[in-house]
Amino acid sequence: RCFHFCKLPGRVMGIRLLRFTSVVIIVLLLVAGALTALLPTIKDDKLPNSRREPKTQSQSALDSFTLIMQTYNRTDLLLKLLNHYQAIPHLHKIIVVWNNIGEKTPEEMWNSLGPHPVPVVFKVQTVNRMRNRLQNFPDLETKAVLMMDDDTLVSAHDLAFAFSIWQQFPEHIVGFVPRKHISTPSGVYSYGSFELQNPGFGNGDQYSMVLIGAAFFHRGYLEDFQQQPEAVYALIDETQNCDDIAMNFLVAKHTGKPSGVFVKPVDIRNLEKDTNSGYSGMWHRAEHLLQRSYCVNKLVSIYDGMPLKYSNIMISQFGFPNYANHKNKM
Amino acid sequence: RCFHFCKLPGRVMGIRLLRFTSVVIIVLLLVAGALTALLPTIKDDKLPNSRREPKTQSQSALDSFTLIMQTYNRTDLLLKLLNHYQAIPHLHKIIVVWNNIGEKTPEEMWNSLGPHPVPVVFKVQTVNRMRNRLQNFPDLETKAVLMMDDDTLVSAHDLAFAFSIWQQFPEHIVGFVPRKHISTPSGVYSYGSFELQNPGFGNGDQYSMVLIGAAFFHRGYLEDFQQQPEAVYALIDETQNCDDIAMNFLVAKHTGKPSGVFVKPVDIRNLEKDTNSGYSGMWHRAEHLLQRSYCVNKLVSIYDGMPLKYSNIMISQFGFPNYANHKNKM
Repeated sequence: RCFHFCKLPGRVMGIRLLRFTSVVIIVLLLVAGALTALLPTIKDDKLPNSRREPKTQSQSALDSFTLIMQTYNRTDLLLKLLNHYQAIPHLHKIIVVWNNIGEKTPEEMWNSLGPHPVPVVFKVQTVNRMRNRLQNFPDLETKAVLMMDDDTLVSAHDLAFAFSIWQQFPEHIVGFVPRKHISTPSGVYSYGSFELQNPGFGNGDQYSMVLIGAAFFHRGYLEDFQQQPEAVYALIDETQNCDDIAMNFLVAKHTGKPSGVFVKPVDIRNLEKDTNSGYSGMWHRAEHLLQRSYCVNKLVSIYDGMPLKYSNIMISQFGFPNYANHKNKM
Repeated sequence: RCFHFCKLPGRVMGIRLLRFTSVVIIVLLLVAGALTALLPTIKDDKLPNSRREPKTQSQSALDSFTLIMQTYNRTDLLLKLLNHYQAIPHLHKIIVVWNNIGEKTPEEMWNSLGPHPVPVVFKVQTVNRMRNRLQNFPDLETKAVLMMDDDTLVSAHDLAFAFSIWQQFPEHIVGFVPRKHISTPSGVYSYGSFELQNPGFGNGDQYSMVLIGAAFFHRGYLEDFQQQPEAVYALIDETQNCDDIAMNFLVAKHTGKPSGVFVKPVDIRNLEKDTNSGYSGMWHRAEHLLQRSYCVNKLVSIYDGMPLKYSNIMISQFGFPNYANHKNKM
């Protein structure tokens, strides 16, 4: 019996109608509740007004690049750098070449901290070799490769600009670290940077190599690298060094031109001092530079000639960071 | 009779032999004197230890360039600049486009102050036209043209470097003065420099033109210029301006790429303030920049489209003037 209730609108509608309406309302609430339960969980870090659009693999192979980063004994730096590089414009994918033999990759941690702007592939290696990063990875889907050392941070602005330069000079190594070789009267070559004497072709200095530890180059050169004389691999393995010098020889031979195009970086940093591993890079070894001179001469002997060519072109970005960075006193 | 003499060696030789010898000596002296008189006169300005090797016309057409300098009412500046430019490395010849109608060229003075490192040709014009300098001069023997305004001084170092850049980018206008056009929502274009807003393609500024008043370009473009629609000539003649904008349109249309490559000058000077003629360049006219915006829109209409493309490449010389000018904090 429904005394008070029945005296009110219920009385007008009729008890049967009232019961029907109540049942409908309850059913609708139950359905709504079920639907809510099926919705995907929303994480707490989502900003109220942000659109969650995961980056798809749809970036054209020509308009994006793949980052290849080899790592050894510097996982803390690696993870720092991955946070930076994962967000670079035009990045398609990251390939981490895992030289920590027998050690688990940080893939689980990486996944637990997702989602990420781009996919990362951890390529577990069986032997700790410098030239592991120069494999022709099947994961590569883009024409362009960006190769970075695992202790080097280059700003997104520099990378975006250098990538645009690479797109205009796709047969060259376009990067941020120039080096050169010099001839000596004895015919023996020596390797170095600007502290070495200028090669003597007109005013100013010249460079004949751009190091691949901070550079863009065409993936075709990774294919080419697989076709080199055995002696080249032996040299790189013997020294655990000089893979970049070998690549410059390869590119110069292929093009008949200077192998590299130097783009002057605005913001490039070596994070080595920030590592907790206490592991110092190979370039700290006392014999490092002597080894590189040794490699230059060995490679000349292997390739039966000096293919490296000099360039003095230094490219900067017009009007950036300073919109008047080209202003003159005219 | 030769007493003392005859008693000495003469006696042994005999008088006949002595006479014969004397005659031979006298004849030789006469011949030597005659030959000396035939030698070319040596001028006083010759340094004792200098070799006088006049520069021949033998510089390869690919390894040298021709300077074309148009001049109006600034002969004092012209002569100053000629002393500078005549000594630039790789210069083949200078063509002075003489826009001082009815006035004698300084050719006599030039000759009286010879010898000069390169020949200069004075092309006397019949009408004072801005586009006189864009004729396809038969005097041109080199592939490369260096065009300079008659009030602009660019250092030999800058010119040597920019010429080497042109040799690597021969289809572009390689020069020292970048400018741009911008689109506006109304579809009307505007012309300017870095004080105008950036075109908005990524970071930094862009340029879409390199002015020909301080630039290298291929002589082929002078031939091409002769084949342009009449309306282009009419526009240049009407404004006495914009020949350089027209050239950039021509080059961009031809290559489908940015017309120019900007080389950042180390030392470029405008000598206008140094002139005694009191004549200020055209760019001082109040309507100068408005005219150039007008020209951009007119040319778009004549060519039925906007062929100019943007670039943000700024080229400098590696290790010059400062051998460490690319050094970074890595």
